Amino acid sequence: MTSTAPNPGPLSAEELDLFNKWWHAANYLSIGQIYLLRNALLREPLKLEHIKKRLLGHWGTTPGLNFIWLHLNRIIRAQGQDILFVAGPGHGAPGLIASTWMEGTYTEYFPDVTQDEEGMTRLFRQFSFPGGIPSHAAATTPGSIHEGGELGYSLSHAYGAVFDHPDLVVACVVGDGEAETGPLATSWHSNKFLDPKTDGAVLPILHLNGYKIANPTVLARIPKHELRDFLKGCGYEPIFVEGHDPAPMHQAMAKAMDEAFARITAIQTAARSGKDAPQRPTWPMIVLRSPKGWTCPKTVDGLRTEGFWRAHQVPVDHMEKPGHLAILEEWMKSYKPEELFDENGSLKDEIAALTPPPSKRMSASPYANGGALLRPLRLPDFRAHAVAITAPGKTVTESTRVLGEWLKDIMAANLDKRNFRVLAPDENNSNRLNAVLDVTNRAWNAETEPYDDHLAKDGHVMEILSEHTCQGWLEGYLLTGRHGFLSCYEAFIHIIDSMVNQHAKWLKTSRETSWRRPIASLNYLLTSHVWRQDHNGFSHQDPGFLNHMVNKKAETVRIYLPPDANTLLCVADHCLRSRDRINVIVAGKQPELQWLSMDDALTHCQQGIGMWEWASNDKGSEPDVVIASAGDVPTLEALAAVSLLNEYLPDVKIRFVNVVDLMTLQTPEQHPHGLPDETFDALFTSDKPVIFAFHGYPALVHQLIYKRKNAANFHVHGFREEGTTTTPFDMTVRNHLDRFHLVANVIRRVPRLASQAAYTHQAVRDKLAEHERYVCEHGEDMPEIRNWTWPQ
Amino acid sequence: MTSTAPNPGPLSAEELDLFNKWWHAANYLSIGQIYLLRNALLREPLKLEHIKKRLLGHWGTTPGLNFIWLHLNRIIRAQGQDILFVAGPGHGAPGLIASTWMEGTYTEYFPDVTQDEEGMTRLFRQFSFPGGIPSHAAATTPGSIHEGGELGYSLSHAYGAVFDHPDLVVACVVGDGEAETGPLATSWHSNKFLDPKTDGAVLPILHLNGYKIANPTVLARIPKHELRDFLKGCGYEPIFVEGHDPAPMHQAMAKAMDEAFARITAIQTAARSGKDAPQRPTWPMIVLRSPKGWTCPKTVDGLRTEGFWRAHQVPVDHMEKPGHLAILEEWMKSYKPEELFDENGSLKDEIAALTPPPSKRMSASPYANGGALLRPLRLPDFRAHAVAITAPGKTVTESTRVLGEWLKDIMAANLDKRNFRVLAPDENNSNRLNAVLDVTNRAWNAETEPYDDHLAKDGHVMEILSEHTCQGWLEGYLLTGRHGFLSCYEAFIHIIDSMVNQHAKWLKTSRETSWRRPIASLNYLLTSHVWRQDHNGFSHQDPGFLNHMVNKKAETVRIYLPPDANTLLCVADHCLRSRDRINVIVAGKQPELQWLSMDDALTHCQQGIGMWEWASNDKGSEPDVVIASAGDVPTLEALAAVSLLNEYLPDVKIRFVNVVDLMTLQTPEQHPHGLPDETFDALFTSDKPVIFAFHGYPALVHQLIYKRKNAANFHVHGFREEGTTTTPFDMTVRNHLDRFHLVANVIRRVPRLASQAAYTHQAVRDKLAEHERYVCEHGEDMPEIRNWTWPQ
Repeated sequence: MTSTAPNPGPLSAEELDLFNKWWHAANYLSIGQIYLLRNALLREPLKLEHIKKRLLGHWGTTPGLNFIWLHLNRIIRAQGQDILFVAGPGHGAPGLIASTWMEGTYTEYFPDVTQDEEGMTRLFRQFSFPGGIPSHAAATTPGSIHEGGELGYSLSHAYGAVFDHPDLVVACVVGDGEAETGPLATSWHSNKFLDPKTDGAVLPILHLNGYKIANPTVLARIPKHELRDFLKGCGYEPIFVEGHDPAPMHQAMAKAMDEAFARITAIQTAARSGKDAPQRPTWPMIVLRSPKGWTCPKTVDGLRTEGFWRAHQVPVDHMEKPGHLAILEEWMKSYKPEELFDENGSLKDEIAALTPPPSKRMSASPYANGGALLRPLRLPDFRAHAVAITAPGKTVTESTRVLGEWLKDIMAANLDKRNFRVLAPDENNSNRLNAVLDVTNRAWNAETEPYDDHLAKDGHVMEILSEHTCQGWLEGYLLTGRHGFLSCYEAFIHIIDSMVNQHAKWLKTSRETSWRRPIASLNYLLTSHVWRQDHNGFSHQDPGFLNHMVNKKAETVRIYLPPDANTLLCVADHCLRSRDRINVIVAGKQPELQWLSMDDALTHCQQGIGMWEWASNDKGSEPDVVIASAGDVPTLEALAAVSLLNEYLPDVKIRFVNVVDLMTLQTPEQHPHGLPDETFDALFTSDKPVIFAFHGYPALVHQLIYKRKNAANFHVHGFREEGTTTTPFDMTVRNHLDRFHLVANVIRRVPRLASQAAYTHQAVRDKLAEHERYVCEHGEDMPEIRNWTWPQ
Repeated sequence: MTSTAPNPGPLSAEELDLFNKWWHAANYLSIGQIYLLRNALLREPLKLEHIKKRLLGHWGTTPGLNFIWLHLNRIIRAQGQDILFVAGPGHGAPGLIASTWMEGTYTEYFPDVTQDEEGMTRLFRQFSFPGGIPSHAAATTPGSIHEGGELGYSLSHAYGAVFDHPDLVVACVVGDGEAETGPLATSWHSNKFLDPKTDGAVLPILHLNGYKIANPTVLARIPKHELRDFLKGCGYEPIFVEGHDPAPMHQAMAKAMDEAFARITAIQTAARSGKDAPQRPTWPMIVLRSPKGWTCPKTVDGLRTEGFWRAHQVPVDHMEKPGHLAILEEWMKSYKPEELFDENGSLKDEIAALTPPPSKRMSASPYANGGALLRPLRLPDFRAHAVAITAPGKTVTESTRVLGEWLKDIMAANLDKRNFRVLAPDENNSNRLNAVLDVTNRAWNAETEPYDDHLAKDGHVMEILSEHTCQGWLEGYLLTGRHGFLSCYEAFIHIIDSMVNQHAKWLKTSRETSWRRPIASLNYLLTSHVWRQDHNGFSHQDPGFLNHMVNKKAETVRIYLPPDANTLLCVADHCLRSRDRINVIVAGKQPELQWLSMDDALTHCQQGIGMWEWASNDKGSEPDVVIASAGDVPTLEALAAVSLLNEYLPDVKIRFVNVVDLMTLQTPEQHPHGLPDETFDALFTSDKPVIFAFHGYPALVHQLIYKRKNAANFHVHGFREEGTTTTPFDMTVRNHLDRFHLVANVIRRVPRLASQAAYTHQAVRDKLAEHERYVCEHGEDMPEIRNWTWPQ
């Protein structure tokens, strides 16, 4: 099939001509962004001074993206379909931005980038330029919910966006480089969690251009039958569009798009009329195989360029080299700019006519500015789930189970709006959030068995054993204007360290744009935490996600360590109301002592940190020592230490401080939640020893408080990377977080107790030896530990 | 096909009986580990006091693992094949340990766990018990290179183990839960990087038992034709073994194993005799579909158990409940222990006869104790690549390119031993390590084109666009006794945060075993780092991996920030000689000024930290200020600040300190490389301001030095999470790491310069405004910045 063959349709000869022109214009504008500072329309002979000093950008994937965008526009014009474009290829921004400018959207968002020669010059100049925009799609890109750069998350973002958006199709371009990443490789299976009735559809477009930075790609170098098997095995029916000759490629792509959208419509119509088969539908997808850097020079300096990795970034660079300017000029002129743009530098009307109606432009999709769509969650009063506290430290409850009951209420209250999902990597029940399954199910659209429980196509609990996919779905869901809650074993949240980095960057950049509205926060509940993974052992013990998060912008990050169920409820309520944050809540799922009544919890959480008078005996005077805690198990051990001291050394004046909001430890200059120095010093004194029982790695507290006057007197007990399979209390002993080590350190640090240090040291050693004997004999903790309650 | 059908082979009736007995014994021993404290052989009626107080362990996957192990042993006995067993299912340890004990290996490693009733009791007791062993395979498990617990890495570990081990087959069991993870999903494609001639083979065994913790699994709930397509699409020929009736299942598995190993032998024979087809072979794999918790009670308390998620952990628990003890007793007795073990509690001879010869036992595989196989790398003298330095700060070089030249020498020197691989996620050339391709190729066994460069089946540079797969391959390669070097963009190394956690835990636990020998260190080169990703923008800018690493055990972690090429060479040499470490080297790939001659570099790197006299003017007296740096770009800016101060305020006494080995900042109690307090105070003074230009997040330095006397006087400049697409120098300006901000801070902190602070403040503001105007106009840094060299 060549371009001179009889027109095979579906495009008429006129359409074909116009399509090529749109594509040429988008390509021209893409190249202009990479290269040009001025002379945007090449009205004068190209000179070195017109060229950017540093040539930064990626041409390789761009013509393919432009091609796809153009053909999606045809569907939108014909069918009025709402389509959101997700560009997986990391650095495809020149293309997205070119099309967005051609559609007029860019000028609406950035009025100085006008649709004329001056605006075109601005468009070119700002790209990958100081003070300008990055070379990949970002929060600054209209129509985008997906940061390029780090690869792997396009398809999970796409699925997240269409859940509960039945009218939306996300066209998700997956690069063959990205397809090699783990997160992308598993996200193909998201189709097993999609309900064609109540969710929208994803149209994956696998773009095989054959090369990464410097290597061929795997999926482009396996036999076609293998690729087809692979995609069918992932549950898709691939439609192949392959070649390089533009005319037949346009026809093939138009035909593929027609087929794909007809199939999507058929699936949705069947499902929504109740006439669908019980089994999961096979969704269409497109495989576009086109040359890397399509339409750029075939060779540069005699070296293969088009269709090779050399076209990945800047196909011709070192512009001072003889002939290079001419190559660029000839390349750009091959698109015949004079046929594309009028005298003013505006896109010619007949080409611009390919733009969809304003409200349907992908570049202006309301779905891409989720904050503007966002409606607050209906939050039933969490106080209805308050754990009744007659006295501190007497009642035992699984705190996350209490939270689960409230999440169930939230789910029920918002189910008609379909704007709230609870996610977990196969851990929802393990994390004690199973109550939510009383009012909804787990999303599941694969085979079922009669004895299955709580699986349904339209379930709002999402569970796949992939932290990456859960995170990607949730990001896509939030970025398109909904709410969510993700629970995860604490140690394994590190699996998405890098994804949360990118989301944090997105939030920062979003705040810096004028037009992105705040979205619902990304809420994590980390449970099965380091201190209560005694049964699973060392591999499951890691509290380091907190360290990871504090590096992010203070405006973005919140860390909460509620010590019991009522504080957990307060904190969770706050998080679900917040916007544009990443909230990390760490709370235990095992039965644990409860400390605060709901009234006390509310006050405590509002302040984020505070003295617990009932656990203090300093009576407003300066204490001998401050015992502080952050986290549920550390709070238990710290209070047990207080009770031991009260019993054996009743004249030691102890102040007990609990930290719920970790960022209060920083100064107000460092973090918006930071305590003023006066308040901090009033709590922690300016010269008394502070024995701090901390949930995570001790150095994190030192990192947070280094600016405080009393910093040198903080002695932090926390996780020392001594993990194993053992008993809960033994975990604290191995890491010196237990009550006995805390008591010993108090005595060591309070000068007037110096004389008792040796005696205490021995007493503690004896006690710990007794403990060790007991657990090795019985496999559980001593009764005095297991049954301990707050004595007062 | 049922067990009463005529014997279809390949097992005789006698073999079948013995196979069942071995399997029963392994299952019995697995259950005993989960449940029993005593009465191991159920010689007396089972009572509550025989049962562990806390029932911890995972039965669900175990009978399948036992079944597979048994059938692999048959192949080993018949063919003498070297097989290493990798158990992907997270918590399958009871099975592995049962088989290992039955083979006598466990007793060889742990002599008190004898092969009799007493030893069996010890074996049971220690499992998931304080002071005992974890519930998943770990460094304490003989025959294992793979930590269970965190899922996703079994198959990349397996491939890593067989690269350059042509005689080895790794039988890699992939659980259907693990198969949902991203890292596993992409690692199927490792077969495109395997050379059947010079590498061994991996036999993946996908174990579909249908359930995760509380959900069905995706791959068990898609139609069989889809699963087959999927696996064929991944390049495998699946052999299905499906059912639950043991007799036909044994026959089917024996047949499948025969087929699979025959196919492996055929592929390898063809490749090694030069008669293989040019195209990649289709490797066999096995799909074992068997019930979760196979052979456990069908129901407990009327609830479905076998073949359901309830069998995931402990099928019957709450042993105090009426009838539960009887259920357990009946279940264990269903294996007829009296037919399996003799009076002493030893495995009966005829069953033990199924054990392979001692040297071939999987439980004793030498490949699983890689340190014992490890031979040192031949390391050519790196000084041959010294960059000639006539004076500091005059020469410009791409430091990693220099390193690449030396890596080429190393590759060449060790190529005949085939024990060194260089890995990168499609970034080897981008990271300037391309010289190594002069002596080897990129491993590639997929389709090729005539114009491809440096692709070969037996290449020793490994590039797939998956950080997870690179990391997994390298871990597998190191754990089986070889050496490697992984380069990665700094920001994206976070993708494997969680993998490196697990490797660090493995190394710690290995050190605590008596029999694991040290393995080669895991060496990272992080380049394209935060300060020189100005062209790629914010998504590529993150120095937080250092924060992540310092949480690990001090015995394991080393962090190096060589400021130039010669120090980079010194540091890399040290890392490649080290054992059992995780070494992180951060170094730039862009042209940068060089500071130290090779002699000076050697001295400096040996100390890890030191004063640079040529950049200091305190002449042995107490300085006014210490200016310190760690990292190449911070060193450049810090030295430029020194030169500005020297010029404008020549009487300010400056001491310049450079840190190569970041952990010297900690105390010797915190880290083996920590500087003694006296040395630290001698360098940094005990009361003078220290202006510290740091590569990463400033708080990390504060975290490392909080115990030091002068800690409160450290003022650290580093990455403030202000990233974008801009110029290199502008990146430092936005984060206040640039020379001008450093100068301003010196003047602010040195008391006797207080009078100049206002003036300097204004001068700095003017200079920065000039900078901003220039870069916005020209898109590159001012010539005085670009062309700056050290003036002396």
